[in-house]
Amino acid sequence: MSDDILYHFALGTGTHDFPALFGDVKFVCVGGSPSRMKAFITYIAEELGVGSPGQDYPNICAGTDRYAMYKAGPVLSISHGMGIPSIAIMLHELFKLLCHSKCSNVTIIRIGTSGGIGLAPGSVVITKQSVDATFKPQFEQFVLGKPVYRSTNLDEELAQDLMECAKELDQFKTVFGNTMCTLDFYEGQARLDGAICSYTEEEKAQYLTAAYKAGVRNIEMESSVFAAMCNIIGIKGAVVCVTLLNRLEGDQISTPHDVLGEYQKRPQILVGHWIKKRLGKK
Amino acid sequence: MSDDILYHFALGTGTHDFPALFGDVKFVCVGGSPSRMKAFITYIAEELGVGSPGQDYPNICAGTDRYAMYKAGPVLSISHGMGIPSIAIMLHELFKLLCHSKCSNVTIIRIGTSGGIGLAPGSVVITKQSVDATFKPQFEQFVLGKPVYRSTNLDEELAQDLMECAKELDQFKTVFGNTMCTLDFYEGQARLDGAICSYTEEEKAQYLTAAYKAGVRNIEMESSVFAAMCNIIGIKGAVVCVTLLNRLEGDQISTPHDVLGEYQKRPQILVGHWIKKRLGKK
Repeated sequence: MSDDILYHFALGTGTHDFPALFGDVKFVCVGGSPSRMKAFITYIAEELGVGSPGQDYPNICAGTDRYAMYKAGPVLSISHGMGIPSIAIMLHELFKLLCHSKCSNVTIIRIGTSGGIGLAPGSVVITKQSVDATFKPQFEQFVLGKPVYRSTNLDEELAQDLMECAKELDQFKTVFGNTMCTLDFYEGQARLDGAICSYTEEEKAQYLTAAYKAGVRNIEMESSVFAAMCNIIGIKGAVVCVTLLNRLEGDQISTPHDVLGEYQKRPQILVGHWIKKRLGKK
Repeated sequence: MSDDILYHFALGTGTHDFPALFGDVKFVCVGGSPSRMKAFITYIAEELGVGSPGQDYPNICAGTDRYAMYKAGPVLSISHGMGIPSIAIMLHELFKLLCHSKCSNVTIIRIGTSGGIGLAPGSVVITKQSVDATFKPQFEQFVLGKPVYRSTNLDEELAQDLMECAKELDQFKTVFGNTMCTLDFYEGQARLDGAICSYTEEEKAQYLTAAYKAGVRNIEMESSVFAAMCNIIGIKGAVVCVTLLNRLEGDQISTPHDVLGEYQKRPQILVGHWIKKRLGKK
């Protein structure tokens, strides 16, 4: 097509010079919350020594409130909202943006939050495989009304490199694990504190224990479609999430706000270290 | 439980007096975009004559950037982001909020945007049934790793009342129709302009024509879980969406920004009229 409108970014090839705006992008970091992704661009810009101190990074998607996007040097930081549909819309438009911008050798990393299983809160999980609610490493996509199943494997070398960085940093516990990706935060994750709950505490414990035995170490809501789309497009991807609570001990996120804030910085610190290393700045 | 933390609203029964804050709520309107839901609260406050002219409505969920919430008199206006998982988290916490606040006789209406099938852009669809990608009126929810199927019927009387209001207003075309609710905006809605597309233009046309024959008049991404949860909780719900384009004629949303802005006001005008009537102000 002649013009391509990336509707949910409020960007278009007819109105924006994509190669000039994004041609130098090598690293894309994505996460649910717009304010967290703004905090990340400020952090990574300082770490890389790009931009000036105290610089404000404008939201490139200011024409919409669906997503927020920030750029510093070769790093793009984008929010994706919550859940598979929300991140999938963002990834479709991101992959088109990277193509229109003629970018090459781009790596994309999700830096998120999650519920942990059998881990102390604040632990970081580097995802080996994203699995569904039945612990299978697949993502179900409906195409023309028919289900299609896609692989959710992630790049092994990238995951190993990230673990190497975690060991170098030695600031917080970091583990490899499978990540269960669900379509719901309450019933879908066996919580007892939703508005709807049709199972017992014992059934919940059995389900989460079975997940642990299947290698699941954390639960979130975006990794499966992220992995599936990275595989199809042929872009290296990783998922690095901090755990905010241990689901074997409870459902409510009652940790103080400042402690949660510190936890949420951990994936940023880890991925920031990896980017610096990749750029030869470490 | 003693304290209940509504994490994604940044509200909790231990820190907020729910009955004092929300006890008088009778109408909850929800939509994807935070700025649209802020515009709605300003509009409905003026229409109902509550608050003072030019008043600013603070975001009740200012402690988080997951959702935005505004209140004017008996009306609560909340953003829900994009997709089933995102609106489901919001609804779980909303239903708990209404329960903790001891609210009664509450009606909830989704005022959203959608892609139309066989309708001129700007047409408003009042949903009869929300259907899935195979045109069935059901919502699949995974509970403890097993699929559960839930009815997606909506309140018939409420839908009829809304259609009556549309006739009284006589400002834009409004129709009853089935609404297809998908987990994806691109492949899931048979678009040809996503980053991934494995079907032909002809196959797309066949699928959308089959949807039209099954009574589908618009496609969006939240109505099925909205209807299913309203049914289970026993709260009256309606879905009123404007169509931004006719999917039989294209995929891209290329309508000028000001025209789209005018379209997006239509569900607000319709639902505003219904609320005024219900309050005896019309």
